[in-house]
Amino acid sequence: LAIRAEHTRVACAQLAPVLGDADGNRLRAAQAIQDAAGLGAELVVLPELCTSGYAFADAAEARDCAEPIDGPTVRAWTELARRRAIVIVGGICELDADGALRNTAVVVDRRGLRAGYRKTHLWGREPLIFAAGEVPPPVIGTDLGQVGVAVCYDAFFPEVLRGLAVRGAELIAVPMNSPVEGPPLQPLAAELVLAIAAAHVNRVFIAQADRAGEERGIEWAQASAIVAPDGSLLAGPLTGTQLLMADCELGLARSKSIGEHNDVLADRRPELYGEAAQPTPTTKETVL
Amino acid sequence: LAIRAEHTRVACAQLAPVLGDADGNRLRAAQAIQDAAGLGAELVVLPELCTSGYAFADAAEARDCAEPIDGPTVRAWTELARRRAIVIVGGICELDADGALRNTAVVVDRRGLRAGYRKTHLWGREPLIFAAGEVPPPVIGTDLGQVGVAVCYDAFFPEVLRGLAVRGAELIAVPMNSPVEGPPLQPLAAELVLAIAAAHVNRVFIAQADRAGEERGIEWAQASAIVAPDGSLLAGPLTGTQLLMADCELGLARSKSIGEHNDVLADRRPELYGEAAQPTPTTKETVL
Repeated sequence: LAIRAEHTRVACAQLAPVLGDADGNRLRAAQAIQDAAGLGAELVVLPELCTSGYAFADAAEARDCAEPIDGPTVRAWTELARRRAIVIVGGICELDADGALRNTAVVVDRRGLRAGYRKTHLWGREPLIFAAGEVPPPVIGTDLGQVGVAVCYDAFFPEVLRGLAVRGAELIAVPMNSPVEGPPLQPLAAELVLAIAAAHVNRVFIAQADRAGEERGIEWAQASAIVAPDGSLLAGPLTGTQLLMADCELGLARSKSIGEHNDVLADRRPELYGEAAQPTPTTKETVL
Repeated sequence: LAIRAEHTRVACAQLAPVLGDADGNRLRAAQAIQDAAGLGAELVVLPELCTSGYAFADAAEARDCAEPIDGPTVRAWTELARRRAIVIVGGICELDADGALRNTAVVVDRRGLRAGYRKTHLWGREPLIFAAGEVPPPVIGTDLGQVGVAVCYDAFFPEVLRGLAVRGAELIAVPMNSPVEGPPLQPLAAELVLAIAAAHVNRVFIAQADRAGEERGIEWAQASAIVAPDGSLLAGPLTGTQLLMADCELGLARSKSIGEHNDVLADRRPELYGEAAQPTPTTKETVL
């Protein structure tokens, strides 16, 4: 019988991997995981594609950094997860059994690989390199609680985070590589606004690990953050290579009540949301 | 042939109606509409229940302020809309044909009453007073563009604003009465974070009109704001009885592109969102 501690120490590692240096990036990731565990972290979230880098010139370059789902990264993380009794969520460049490249987030704990989630909403030039996932993101029962996963642009789709919350996620881990596009929103970067809004309307914790560093002219939003179910920012944002940490009472996310009389999931009216499931807008009325 | 101007001047009137003083509140609302039109506003958004007040002790008290959908408020707004060639969106306490009370937002333009939308997500004690709407919120083709409507707590449900965007809304008008519950989020009130996030992920304008004043101990968030499709805050928040205004190029909301390669509606994967349509969470895995 494992005792579920009241608080879970959550860490997000904002890393600066070097494009194409898979071995070096694995060492950097392992070091961040060990640093976090040394500070008591029980759940460590790492960025998207954190062992390969992001700004591939083409698929061939990505393929050079790719690995099978049970490759060296997951083996190293499994070893660390067992030794430190922690849960690790982070992104790898996956070469799947059919030879396709996938932008994949893995969940590893003391039992080993618990899930590989292939990003379902691809950003920018990613479709030139990766095949999009065909399966919604998972919610994994861990020693710490129910952990959901989404990857970067996935979190731009409220449907994704809502779905994870409806399926019981208490914390949603979001590996990301969020490039800066244009001037930042004031007073908070868009990536933080979206995380706060999603946490607030779903009453879940969100732990997102973004990138630091620079890659082929890409500047990163450095939007790593840990957000509580009431929408309060528990950690982040910070600039540079950083470890963000917060103690999260994950059980709080099992209550969806807001105010005295409301419940953000029970109050939904799914019978009225059918239109949102249509993939294309209806024809617009023309104004004459 | 009406020319669609490149910019639409949008106003949100943050009002302080007096509970139960329907005639006085209609005068206050009419004055705000005229002030806004005098400043060139073409679309005026007023708060939820702006002719009745909000903090009813019981249904009987609400019934005293209620009116049919074609009652004195809509008649007054139709007259103003015709005279000034404007669009008005605001909330009334509706007595429906079956004698039920409804928390209703109306859209009025030079053609008269275009829509009455009955709030579908009721907050707090509202279910003791109002019957919830059974129909999703509308998108109305106006001279200015496609105007969607949601009322206050509706906007807590990303499905609602997403549905309006999918159905072609360029601007979503949100009459609201948002009570302060606990300490505000830093650095932005939750109501603003949600509006910015919804505008950003749907690439729509959002114009929300909240309350000022005080009612039976309720303090209002005063979260009136006008937000652009890139998530930037064009106007608000302000404290007190205020008119917020911004010139909005509504046509911008017809493009859903973000970055060079993406489109926030076309990139959706509705076939993967089915779980979100389930009204109750799946059974949680128990951690032992």
